[in-house]
Amino acid sequence: MASWTSGIQAVLLDVSGVLYDSGGPAGGAAIPGSIEAVTRIRQAGLKLRFCTNESQATRSQFVRKLQKFGFKISEDEVTAPGPAARNLMQERRLRPHLLVHDDLLPEFESTDKSEPNCVVLGDAAENFSYQNLNKAFQVLLGLQTPVLISLGKGRYYKETDGLKLDVGAYMKALEYACDITAEVVGKPSKNFFMSALTEMGVQPHEAVMIGDDVVNDIGGAQSCGIRAVLVRTGKYRPSDENHPQVTADGCVDNLAQAVDVLLASRITDQ
Amino acid sequence: MASWTSGIQAVLLDVSGVLYDSGGPAGGAAIPGSIEAVTRIRQAGLKLRFCTNESQATRSQFVRKLQKFGFKISEDEVTAPGPAARNLMQERRLRPHLLVHDDLLPEFESTDKSEPNCVVLGDAAENFSYQNLNKAFQVLLGLQTPVLISLGKGRYYKETDGLKLDVGAYMKALEYACDITAEVVGKPSKNFFMSALTEMGVQPHEAVMIGDDVVNDIGGAQSCGIRAVLVRTGKYRPSDENHPQVTADGCVDNLAQAVDVLLASRITDQ
Repeated sequence: MASWTSGIQAVLLDVSGVLYDSGGPAGGAAIPGSIEAVTRIRQAGLKLRFCTNESQATRSQFVRKLQKFGFKISEDEVTAPGPAARNLMQERRLRPHLLVHDDLLPEFESTDKSEPNCVVLGDAAENFSYQNLNKAFQVLLGLQTPVLISLGKGRYYKETDGLKLDVGAYMKALEYACDITAEVVGKPSKNFFMSALTEMGVQPHEAVMIGDDVVNDIGGAQSCGIRAVLVRTGKYRPSDENHPQVTADGCVDNLAQAVDVLLASRITDQ
Repeated sequence: MASWTSGIQAVLLDVSGVLYDSGGPAGGAAIPGSIEAVTRIRQAGLKLRFCTNESQATRSQFVRKLQKFGFKISEDEVTAPGPAARNLMQERRLRPHLLVHDDLLPEFESTDKSEPNCVVLGDAAENFSYQNLNKAFQVLLGLQTPVLISLGKGRYYKETDGLKLDVGAYMKALEYACDITAEVVGKPSKNFFMSALTEMGVQPHEAVMIGDDVVNDIGGAQSCGIRAVLVRTGKYRPSDENHPQVTADGCVDNLAQAVDVLLASRITDQ
């Protein structure tokens, strides 16, 4: 059996649910062992990239939060849908109507937003009002070819005060109303994983993705030929190990164990 | 060619977009010729039923509004999703968490709403807030078998201040987030049309549906074996006459013309 550890030169890490749990007055806390695990990946000489669907903050705010939790991480190591969407706007001369979280707005500060020819949908949280959804819908139906860019397609996530609908639910609402299919920027889209690999200069078979979301992290990475390991932290549920469509290349209790297994195999291989 | 007029004993009428156009300070206005058309259907001795997906008001409020526009109509002639859902609650011992318009609440006054075991979703308009959608989602995910009852599945509708997302868009959001399929009460569900026929005591081949919504009115009625005629008023768009899935049994400019054609054929047949 081919192991998920063989020939690995680069690690892609999901963040929320793998490095930290969100919620609480401090906005979350590191998952035990994960701070050290990140350090051990670096010390082993492996390439490293943080691959997140976070769209409630700019990349720099996001990195500052993780640094506060104790992680050693810099902005240029993070692949996030906000900057990816901003680049897409430039490449395709798109001028977005933004329905995103207030804290993500600075990411699009220099983007031309006059006479919108697309809608960019993020995890807008409180900004998902009846008025704002109707407005985004009206912009889309007013376009000859409606273009809807969604920053991820997550179904829901957990906060300390309960489960919240994620951007994917609102994406589905607009898709149905406009009879269109959104373009997803972020996991599980192939482009997103591939751009992370390009930035590290590695091939799919040389990388492993470690995540807690069986569809977006594991299925998404595997669709690019990247092996993927599921952690039993974050949004993980036991039924994820018997998912009808996706089978992870490995399952571990947490990131610390994933790094144990990976580094142990490197010693054996040498 | 079998005509859509042959053997007709009963007429099912969609309301908004066929009898009246909504919006404006008065809440709408009768479409020219439609008040007289309803009277002529009655005078011809045809059975008549108003078949609406209206879920922003109780049936009695709805009837009062139409009477104010000048229509002769009584409450027991209206088939609407609110009362249908209320009956469903009784039949299946369902206790709803309601995400509906405030004006529909009286319809469920006598319904047990303690410890909800389903969510009933109507066109809640301003009540479609981030908080209320999360709450409905939390109720669903808290159930062992989530049951979502949707009062129609319309994509959008037009008001004087612009297009609005209809209940179907929010239904899709909750379906996706919970990985379930909603049960639709109202058009285009077969049960809804069949209960209207039962109340009139006629068979599907003896009735014709007249509506402006090619999918919900025309496709829905036809799926029960009821012939269906599309009017070029309300939300009608020319592309509806070349719809990929649905072909109406007839197309007319408005309700008045539909009644002209229907009554003329009765004279010829006799």
